[in-house]
Amino acid sequence: MGAERQTDVAAGEAPSTGSGQALRLFVGAFVEELARSGVAHACICPGSRSTPLALLLRRHPAIKVWTHLDERSAAYFALGMAKALREPVVVVSTSGTAAVNFAPAVVEAYFARVPLLVLTADRPPELRDVGAPQTIDQVRLYGSHAKWFLEMMLPEASSQAIRFARTAACRAVATARSDAAGPVHVNFPFREPLIPDGGPAPERDAKVSQRDDESPYVSVEEAPRRPDAAGLAPLAAELRAAKRGLIVCGPQDDPRFPEAVARLAADLGYPLLADPLSQVRCGPHHGPIVIDSYDAFLRDEETARALAPDVVLRFGATPVSKPLLLYLQRHGRCRQILVGGGDGWGDPGLTASEALRADPRSLCEALVGALQPAGQVQGADTPSHWAARWQEVAEMARAALTSRLGEEPGMSEPGVFAELADMLPDGALLFAGNSMPVRDLDAFFPGAKRPVRFLANRGASGIDGVVSTALGASAAGSGPMVLVTGDVSLYHDMNGLLAAGRHGLQATIVLLHNDGGGIFSFLPQADDPEHFEELFGTPHGLDFGHAATMYGLSYQRVDSWKGFRSAVRQSMGSPGVGLVEVRTERSANARLHRELWDGVSRAVRKPDREGATP
Amino acid sequence: MGAERQTDVAAGEAPSTGSGQALRLFVGAFVEELARSGVAHACICPGSRSTPLALLLRRHPAIKVWTHLDERSAAYFALGMAKALREPVVVVSTSGTAAVNFAPAVVEAYFARVPLLVLTADRPPELRDVGAPQTIDQVRLYGSHAKWFLEMMLPEASSQAIRFARTAACRAVATARSDAAGPVHVNFPFREPLIPDGGPAPERDAKVSQRDDESPYVSVEEAPRRPDAAGLAPLAAELRAAKRGLIVCGPQDDPRFPEAVARLAADLGYPLLADPLSQVRCGPHHGPIVIDSYDAFLRDEETARALAPDVVLRFGATPVSKPLLLYLQRHGRCRQILVGGGDGWGDPGLTASEALRADPRSLCEALVGALQPAGQVQGADTPSHWAARWQEVAEMARAALTSRLGEEPGMSEPGVFAELADMLPDGALLFAGNSMPVRDLDAFFPGAKRPVRFLANRGASGIDGVVSTALGASAAGSGPMVLVTGDVSLYHDMNGLLAAGRHGLQATIVLLHNDGGGIFSFLPQADDPEHFEELFGTPHGLDFGHAATMYGLSYQRVDSWKGFRSAVRQSMGSPGVGLVEVRTERSANARLHRELWDGVSRAVRKPDREGATP
Repeated sequence: MGAERQTDVAAGEAPSTGSGQALRLFVGAFVEELARSGVAHACICPGSRSTPLALLLRRHPAIKVWTHLDERSAAYFALGMAKALREPVVVVSTSGTAAVNFAPAVVEAYFARVPLLVLTADRPPELRDVGAPQTIDQVRLYGSHAKWFLEMMLPEASSQAIRFARTAACRAVATARSDAAGPVHVNFPFREPLIPDGGPAPERDAKVSQRDDESPYVSVEEAPRRPDAAGLAPLAAELRAAKRGLIVCGPQDDPRFPEAVARLAADLGYPLLADPLSQVRCGPHHGPIVIDSYDAFLRDEETARALAPDVVLRFGATPVSKPLLLYLQRHGRCRQILVGGGDGWGDPGLTASEALRADPRSLCEALVGALQPAGQVQGADTPSHWAARWQEVAEMARAALTSRLGEEPGMSEPGVFAELADMLPDGALLFAGNSMPVRDLDAFFPGAKRPVRFLANRGASGIDGVVSTALGASAAGSGPMVLVTGDVSLYHDMNGLLAAGRHGLQATIVLLHNDGGGIFSFLPQADDPEHFEELFGTPHGLDFGHAATMYGLSYQRVDSWKGFRSAVRQSMGSPGVGLVEVRTERSANARLHRELWDGVSRAVRKPDREGATP
Repeated sequence: MGAERQTDVAAGEAPSTGSGQALRLFVGAFVEELARSGVAHACICPGSRSTPLALLLRRHPAIKVWTHLDERSAAYFALGMAKALREPVVVVSTSGTAAVNFAPAVVEAYFARVPLLVLTADRPPELRDVGAPQTIDQVRLYGSHAKWFLEMMLPEASSQAIRFARTAACRAVATARSDAAGPVHVNFPFREPLIPDGGPAPERDAKVSQRDDESPYVSVEEAPRRPDAAGLAPLAAELRAAKRGLIVCGPQDDPRFPEAVARLAADLGYPLLADPLSQVRCGPHHGPIVIDSYDAFLRDEETARALAPDVVLRFGATPVSKPLLLYLQRHGRCRQILVGGGDGWGDPGLTASEALRADPRSLCEALVGALQPAGQVQGADTPSHWAARWQEVAEMARAALTSRLGEEPGMSEPGVFAELADMLPDGALLFAGNSMPVRDLDAFFPGAKRPVRFLANRGASGIDGVVSTALGASAAGSGPMVLVTGDVSLYHDMNGLLAAGRHGLQATIVLLHNDGGGIFSFLPQADDPEHFEELFGTPHGLDFGHAATMYGLSYQRVDSWKGFRSAVRQSMGSPGVGLVEVRTERSANARLHRELWDGVSRAVRKPDREGATP
């Protein structure tokens, strides 16, 4: 910004594609601009065609390189780093199916809005579709799941080409980062020879146009969609006038959002239903207005019916809780306002009546500014009474869950989250696998003032890539990281465990091992004795102790909560990655869940609550 | 074929999407037509949305179901079965990244021309792009790498809908099979509830239109591109007149092609350069005309220059051997005729002067029919002298390789193929991993009359999915299967080993363990002391004995050829999957290869060959 261009000494030079000099200057300029734009990490998979990218990223002093051997795991690892950092992370592959193995993580990044910079090496045009090995069609390889696709030119040392490389890198980073964030794919055709020459890096080569300070060639700034208080006055007045207003927070990633939304909820007297992935459930902003056990008590029809809102402000992506989604659908004729900065549409129940395209935090702050002080209206339907009813039900539900879990003689999957809630230190990162863990996290991890960050792959909610995403998050994050995952998910991305020792990571993996797909026991086919185990339960009989040995993880299989706490504490306090295994039984787990829900229903319907009955 | 339609009792029925009856009849009809069209195997991954497909495939008596937990491995396993059977195999996933994990195998199937039927379950339209979980954009998910994409309608019980399901299934199978074979993707939107009702299968339901014999609803026949002898007469005469004609056979899969092409080569007196994957190298048709050591002696510049052809008939996909490709490029101004049935273009050197779109076997047979008897011309350049020179050089090269390998004190990667050539029984299937194994197979496995089938993933030449493809081939194949793979490739698809015990497979895996990417030691960056090991060599230090224990494989690490032979024989003679590990050293391996090539050069240039010098 503001820097002058240097004289373009290279202008008019004959393009010299494929030379070591062209590689160094063209690819080097691209890499340099990635770094100047803030990229600090690159996950690289070995390959020949990608040699220029690999060497030049590795040579750059501001970029840390993480090598991986399985491209599927590599891309998920990069995704986890990008999630933890909220910054673009690079992932590099050679040509062919190597690049295709990035696809699952690219899809997840697209729907989870994670900035991922996918750089794939490719054959030059003359070697495409003529039977050359490791050559596929990489143009728009990720289809509609890449935010932006760019086919680079063959490397050239000309001034204009280098300007193109610089601009492309800056745009790629900015596009990945820009609201809604997502994956960007840049495809690089390379000819042999593939080794950049040993000349100076482009930022030290006077021949090459660049900014003469440390700024990127193009600085891209994007103003947030920030509503002004005056324009919001009518909405603020309507929200203030509503008697039964509600705020629902689904998955989102802005670390300053929780405080803003909690302030808004408190000012409005609106209960705030906080999905763990909204980051609103735990943190200093926490208070009684934050409702955490809705997944349990909204399963109760009577309660869900009685707690009828007249307006719902919805933030973030789709919440994990199905009972909450059904509740929003049940009350689908009330005013439901979907707030979001991108152009996504997180409303599977199709009940939104308004979509407000604005930065959620800015909107909360602007609304708080626009609100008139609350009146003194009393009665059954004042916001304060309404909020109190939610809080009471929530507390009864939490008490019923805690009580029933306390009665459980052995260990259980829900119990793991209740235990972790007591154990995790400030600033911990809890990563939940998909299928059951993230649902149990939602249901059984109570809110608190202690800051805990929650992550999961909820863009496409796949069970693949969970290990690598979590380890990537732990590699980039600050606090201790605990992953809770099922056995099918751990098996799916077992290759991801290689990163543990390879990169000296510190993490704890809690394995809920019920030998198969636990979630299917909650579906109607669980009653099909003939094919259920073969097609859905799919027991595999794997002993993950062998995987732990192979990958150098410490491993403990525990059978008591005491043992669990000791093993988790030990792992959190030690270097390396620890695997703590809890064995459970799928049908017993389904039964326990049903009993927990039944207990909550009984508790929240208690006849002695009288006036407090929702 | 020829069957009458039954009365369409269901005609005019109101569509009843999403009902158990609609699922049974619509999806059941699709499945029934797959079976009638010849599909006998379905690889199924557990999932909820795919329940209708999973249950109805499982219920069909003519379809064998193979369950897998990692979709990437599942699709490669299906690919291996389809390769071994040369018939379409089904692979089924639920929605979301599950389907994306099929992508690497779909890409390989596309370029390797393998008939793969990819059936993906999806959310219905009203749940797409509105934040519903496990919902991505599955329309044209595999982009240009699916031969055909079909978005199904929501299941309906109406007569017209069921006719659509039947027709779609028949077309999907036919399209996957049709020359050039490849992957077909059918995406099924399903609404809850997802369980088909318990009524009769559609072929036993009088309400549903169908053929009343066992034939498919639409039988699709495709005539081969078969040239007639008369039209070929000029070409036949020109080939006969050529003095230095050559036949090059790359990867191909028609089991009757080798005999036809060997007959043509013998009649023409043309040396026949047989890539192992052409299936021409080994089999009863083998004779001195089949040249197997070209990869070694064409590295010698003098030899490659002297053996100048005037016409080259090229069959199959791109051969593995780079020296052969460089040889074809060196003589790129001679007539090179590319024969193939599809619309591919297997000519990375861009030297073809003619492309003859015809079924290769039919063309060989027609050419043989059209050939005039050979004349009695004598002299240095008669076909017989030309062929004799190739045979002599080939024999000297093979002798030099054998002699040098015999001098090697320890075990070696090339030696593994020489040993296997002596050991494999008739009808064995040898699967070679990509990177080094398939190149060593080409260089070190001599031709023979004994039938051995060779397979590798040479469509996109990825190192991913090798284990699963090989195990799928062994599951569907008849003879004993031996896979030779490197350690990075084995790690990449280690999840594929789960199928070994799960499906009671019998196979032998020979692991060439050099702790990293062996092929990179042959590239220029091998001399970069600073970054080579980190970015390219990528040692991982894994002990695969733990993987063997985890997956119930027998495991032997051998350190002598005697031990190797004993371990391989023991594994081939036992149930289950055996892992035989050979440890090698990457830089020593590169050195040995260079010495082998040098030895061949010295042998074929020997001054005492005088008149026989090429």
